[in-house]
Amino acid sequence: MNVLIVHAHPEPRSFNRALLDTAVRTLGEQGHQVVVSDLYAMGFNPVAGPDDFSERRFPDALQYDREQKQASQRGSFVPDIQQEIDKLLACDLLILQFPLWWFSVPAILKGWIDRVFVNGLVYGAGGKRFDQGGLRGRRAMLSFTTGCFPAMMDSDGLLGERDVILWHLQHGVFGYSGLQVLPPFVGWAIQYSDEAQRAAYLDAYAQRLRGIEGDSPMPAHPLSDFGPDWRLRPEVASRTAGHRRAAAAPTTRPDL
Amino acid sequence: MNVLIVHAHPEPRSFNRALLDTAVRTLGEQGHQVVVSDLYAMGFNPVAGPDDFSERRFPDALQYDREQKQASQRGSFVPDIQQEIDKLLACDLLILQFPLWWFSVPAILKGWIDRVFVNGLVYGAGGKRFDQGGLRGRRAMLSFTTGCFPAMMDSDGLLGERDVILWHLQHGVFGYSGLQVLPPFVGWAIQYSDEAQRAAYLDAYAQRLRGIEGDSPMPAHPLSDFGPDWRLRPEVASRTAGHRRAAAAPTTRPDL
Repeated sequence: MNVLIVHAHPEPRSFNRALLDTAVRTLGEQGHQVVVSDLYAMGFNPVAGPDDFSERRFPDALQYDREQKQASQRGSFVPDIQQEIDKLLACDLLILQFPLWWFSVPAILKGWIDRVFVNGLVYGAGGKRFDQGGLRGRRAMLSFTTGCFPAMMDSDGLLGERDVILWHLQHGVFGYSGLQVLPPFVGWAIQYSDEAQRAAYLDAYAQRLRGIEGDSPMPAHPLSDFGPDWRLRPEVASRTAGHRRAAAAPTTRPDL
Repeated sequence: MNVLIVHAHPEPRSFNRALLDTAVRTLGEQGHQVVVSDLYAMGFNPVAGPDDFSERRFPDALQYDREQKQASQRGSFVPDIQQEIDKLLACDLLILQFPLWWFSVPAILKGWIDRVFVNGLVYGAGGKRFDQGGLRGRRAMLSFTTGCFPAMMDSDGLLGERDVILWHLQHGVFGYSGLQVLPPFVGWAIQYSDEAQRAAYLDAYAQRLRGIEGDSPMPAHPLSDFGPDWRLRPEVASRTAGHRRAAAAPTTRPDL
């Protein structure tokens, strides 16, 4: 497999970095090709704006997604975006490695998504989304650390259910793009962990990655489950209780 | 009221800008004091990093939240952060105005949250969170535009339920900080709307804002609903079916 790991942590000696290093080493040992985008080290610009295109279709007022569509057709993204698009389209597996900040990815990684998951290639262009998305045939996984304990992210936990917190990333970013979503790897409450626990996490992550090719993606509805009104067809909805809980249920337990 | 509006759109002629202008004018007419942080116009830096502090407690390796805690005690944030903290602490109502990009805020706004919602003042420091959060007594609202239609964000819709998509912002960022969350104002499928529809949205937003002081916040569990295991106490959980659906239900319908 070609694996792209997008890494977003400001500190080179962080535990996130140790997880990244573990992934690079382990996946390499398995014979996979690994490419890393270390966003802080690259000084990646996360702010989507008018200078993201070498030419503009609508120069008077910026319509970002429409400019993306044109740039997808004409190859007119600026180099820092095009390079990341090339990496993304070349991968079979995408891993985002980050500390969970405010229930989501750090801004530098959100900006990588805003600028690189472009209209025309990743979605749009005549209905590319979900199982028809531009990244279909590829898989993706979140790997992150938290400041909280696993019980806090159960459905009755203080912060809310893990897959509800991650819905905007797993169903939104990944699912919408056509990526099949593998259950996340979570390093819980890292600031309260000792050396032995951190070593155990690194071991668990390596073990997980050794079998990653055989991992089953989380359940997801294909577009054909939805009617022309964009709602789940009645016969599908009747077997999907609550908030698609059938889809979320298999993976609500912590990894460790 | 003192109102802080944080605005994140790269185009000064955008519909988001028209919503911002409507809010500034309407709230001003009601006698409120309005402060705007226009992040793109300010060139706001969204990338949290080691240069965010004028002195470091742990200079060897960056532990961002621990440095925030110290900076909260010593007033040692760099000026661009301190200015935003001052605006945040001075407000009675916080409005985030943005286009929904990839099921969340644009990166420049995520970075405003990462850098300004600091450990020590907004949360932490002996258990500040949720109804004990550092921003308790204040209210907050999302105001955003989408590329999708309302049915797509119902519980059986293509994208998933609106308040599940927004969970990381409304329950996560706002709720965790102690902010009471007002139902969002949503401009649906703006790229498909005509002038009349846009004018109707601006009128509806103005009308909403004229009555904003009387708006009821969305239901939220106080910390006392959770036991020492960070789970909802059994007697509370039994009346909160599914994923806190009781809390989400009153606001799942579109605004217009």
